Amino acid sequence: MAEYDEHIASTPKGEGTYAAVLHEGWSVGGGLNGGYLLGVIGNAIRQELPDKPDPISVSAYYLGPGVPGAATITTVVRRRGGSLATVAAELWQGDGDQASPRISVLASYGDLGSLPDDVRTTAQPFDMPPPEECLGRTFAKGSEPSLSHRFEMRFHPDRTSFTTGEPSGKGEFSGWFRLADGRDPDPILLLSVVDLLPPVTFDLGMPGWAPTLELTVHVRAKPAPGWLRVRHATRNMAGGMFEEDCEVWDSAGRLVAQSRQLARQPRPAK
Amino acid sequence: MAEYDEHIASTPKGEGTYAAVLHEGWSVGGGLNGGYLLGVIGNAIRQELPDKPDPISVSAYYLGPGVPGAATITTVVRRRGGSLATVAAELWQGDGDQASPRISVLASYGDLGSLPDDVRTTAQPFDMPPPEECLGRTFAKGSEPSLSHRFEMRFHPDRTSFTTGEPSGKGEFSGWFRLADGRDPDPILLLSVVDLLPPVTFDLGMPGWAPTLELTVHVRAKPAPGWLRVRHATRNMAGGMFEEDCEVWDSAGRLVAQSRQLARQPRPAK
Repeated sequence: MAEYDEHIASTPKGEGTYAAVLHEGWSVGGGLNGGYLLGVIGNAIRQELPDKPDPISVSAYYLGPGVPGAATITTVVRRRGGSLATVAAELWQGDGDQASPRISVLASYGDLGSLPDDVRTTAQPFDMPPPEECLGRTFAKGSEPSLSHRFEMRFHPDRTSFTTGEPSGKGEFSGWFRLADGRDPDPILLLSVVDLLPPVTFDLGMPGWAPTLELTVHVRAKPAPGWLRVRHATRNMAGGMFEEDCEVWDSAGRLVAQSRQLARQPRPAK
Repeated sequence: MAEYDEHIASTPKGEGTYAAVLHEGWSVGGGLNGGYLLGVIGNAIRQELPDKPDPISVSAYYLGPGVPGAATITTVVRRRGGSLATVAAELWQGDGDQASPRISVLASYGDLGSLPDDVRTTAQPFDMPPPEECLGRTFAKGSEPSLSHRFEMRFHPDRTSFTTGEPSGKGEFSGWFRLADGRDPDPILLLSVVDLLPPVTFDLGMPGWAPTLELTVHVRAKPAPGWLRVRHATRNMAGGMFEEDCEVWDSAGRLVAQSRQLARQPRPAK
């Protein structure tokens, strides 16, 4: 079993409830990465809907930080019929009176394999040299977050925000992505990929953790095997918040996922 | 009381439940407009959160068509503390055993007036001649939807998809918007505005109703009085679905709302 699948696994406990153990290997900043947590929830929802295997749209509201250890995912099906099923889900942590929801989700699942095969995408995949000509992210010795061992990222050699620490000021960056153990992408992994890279505020000279308030991802097709191309961009940083749009393109040149999140601006380090 | 406020009003019935009467004046195609319904729900949530007057992020999953007449809005607060409160809400219609949820929502509310006043928006407002030099939408005699009497739209005289019926093929359009009775915009109205205009597929030569599956709107600032500028665009029409991004700019030149929806492509008329 691939590492990612082990880490997002959960066990059905009846009545739409699933038990998971959140893995410390997805830590970054003060807690567990939100994309990883969305993969855990998305995988539990999938178990609840055997005839609707694929997430089509998932909206997550982040209520509190996820931490390594036991978690419970509760699911309630709001509509089961038709080509899409809609589910409300929550991820809880803490014992007894201390338990609190950390993420609240609404999601619609369906079967991506059953969709018509028309593609009239006008968006263009951004140019990237092949992965072997791109650069990995560098960290000061001992400062790698555990998250950074789960996957490989390769950035454009001319856009070196992450390799030199010099932001471009444009509020965007793009790179190649694949899991460290070579597990190929699938629709559930896309729920994680849209929130695994550093916040786009890094490219605006604002390093630091940018807590997600809300994130919605639309999965538009099953990704082909191989590297994914991921692009993050923001256009509206104001009022202490910013939106981050993410596109994920697969190795066959198809736009397979689009997401937008609303996040808080990183606070300057004290 | 302005027409819009009358039409989105609801009465508290205790335990987070609100009673509304959906108004036939927002009909289009086969049912009530989704943006209007979101205004009704958003207004009920606001009543539930007296110290958090403004929607910041609202995600809606459309489960079935809304129709004129009685509706019940149920709200459950998922988190009340901090600068944002998060609420799950549903709009129900139908009697007794026939009742079913029509829209399921997650939303975070706060106080837009309390946000820091930094604005580093890099997006540019699209150029539009002043409203009096723009063109209204024309309908064949007797074919105006009741919705069209609720507000004014004015389109760029050089981009006449809606005035001549000739789509540009670009998958985008923009226009001025204001309520017919001159009521000025506020954050709740923005929840409606992002889904009141015709689907962007109109500009791709695909007229007809495009049912929304999911819509998330981020309200980024209180809009200034006056006309709003609204832009719709799509970049990924594939697999029988398309995303529609919407931006709303206020009369002071501020990007006050951003939304994205996932919708089904209109089916060709038979």
